Amino acid sequence: MRNIKLKLEYDGTYFCGWQKQTNGRTVEAALQLAVETIVKEEIKLIGCSRTDSGVHAKEYVVAFKTNSKIPAEKFKDAINTKLPKDIVVLCSEEASEEFHPRYHTKGKTYCYTILNSELPKAIGRDYVYHFKWKLDVDKISEASKYFIGTHDFNAFRSLGGSVKTTVRTIWDIKIEKDEEFIKIYVSGDGFLYNMVRIIVGTLIQVGRNKIEPSEIEDIINQKDRKNAGKCAPAEGLCLEKVFY
Amino acid sequence: MRNIKLKLEYDGTYFCGWQKQTNGRTVEAALQLAVETIVKEEIKLIGCSRTDSGVHAKEYVVAFKTNSKIPAEKFKDAINTKLPKDIVVLCSEEASEEFHPRYHTKGKTYCYTILNSELPKAIGRDYVYHFKWKLDVDKISEASKYFIGTHDFNAFRSLGGSVKTTVRTIWDIKIEKDEEFIKIYVSGDGFLYNMVRIIVGTLIQVGRNKIEPSEIEDIINQKDRKNAGKCAPAEGLCLEKVFY
Repeated sequence: MRNIKLKLEYDGTYFCGWQKQTNGRTVEAALQLAVETIVKEEIKLIGCSRTDSGVHAKEYVVAFKTNSKIPAEKFKDAINTKLPKDIVVLCSEEASEEFHPRYHTKGKTYCYTILNSELPKAIGRDYVYHFKWKLDVDKISEASKYFIGTHDFNAFRSLGGSVKTTVRTIWDIKIEKDEEFIKIYVSGDGFLYNMVRIIVGTLIQVGRNKIEPSEIEDIINQKDRKNAGKCAPAEGLCLEKVFY
Repeated sequence: MRNIKLKLEYDGTYFCGWQKQTNGRTVEAALQLAVETIVKEEIKLIGCSRTDSGVHAKEYVVAFKTNSKIPAEKFKDAINTKLPKDIVVLCSEEASEEFHPRYHTKGKTYCYTILNSELPKAIGRDYVYHFKWKLDVDKISEASKYFIGTHDFNAFRSLGGSVKTTVRTIWDIKIEKDEEFIKIYVSGDGFLYNMVRIIVGTLIQVGRNKIEPSEIEDIINQKDRKNAGKCAPAEGLCLEKVFY
């Protein structure tokens, strides 16, 4: 059977995340319906990760097996005609039969956007976390360095979902400030449940001078979720890139 | 009576424009409800212009008369607590009793954003007009110069609403290209119904080589709506600034 790989962009605002569920609109269910309309057979989508309700993606990778004879690159336009406006197929291509979007991932980059201003914004409000108290971006940058490397990130995960190990490698964290927006790019080989959002929640505590940058090392080493910050809201998070 | 001036930002996507109507959610009705909850009396809002359904505003000026004793600068936060998320009061201040947001306007700047790419975007789709065929931005820039100045813009208006004269002055048109986005800033002393959107629709025709830049002069002079381009969709338009 053929294995077709798609790259998607989606706006997570009105989705209850990627994964299909009995109640609630999901990206998987919407895409599956569109693909099945095109290929005229039942298919099973394999996504590159679960994203939570409200989280966005600029590049999400998914594959499905099909007997359809449609040329691989034609799937893009065909599926786009059947999708709601908050999902766009960016490209479609033939993949090897073994290609598995989740198992074969080498890593991912997420971007978290904070709007650090007194007032929220009406325009674009679904893509940022509005945080009204002034954040010290230099301290956030300094603190972010402590996350880089291979660590047991048990303090930075929510419960739910079984994992063999809570050790992950963060390749890089980059902080960009553009007027009132603070963007936190986190790249790594894999992420625990809510890991990026808890890292961001902890960096916000640093930016508020509630945690010193040098304390991050201890918080990681103590592996206790209670020592880390809150899980930052979903709307600020976007899956930027998936590496294979 | 006191006259309180507000500056607003709003996302027009889910509004049927500014002006109150019997059916349909409007910015005026939503704001009036919020203000009346705060001042505990009936008020009448005077807006700086009508904006159409789907059009956004980064700076919309409105005023209302009130007997309330709330300090002027406190209205901002008070009203914001009562507003839906797609409207934000940016500032509130005391105005002279004569101040009229519409009559006293000296001019406005609108920005129209075209996403000129093969594919639409899921993220931020409500704030751009997706136009998939390649546009020649140099030709659009060249053509835009012909609009600058004082002209009878009868060819660039939709019917509806009575006006004494169809002569308006465009101070400047600025075209910016940023990757796949083309932004068209139009500043002038006043605008006829749909004028900016018809100018943009005409510039799109120029960008597609259907109209030569030098033909714009004739299209203006002939004053015939049929010679100008289509009215570009509302979602790309944003009121950027109001001058007094």
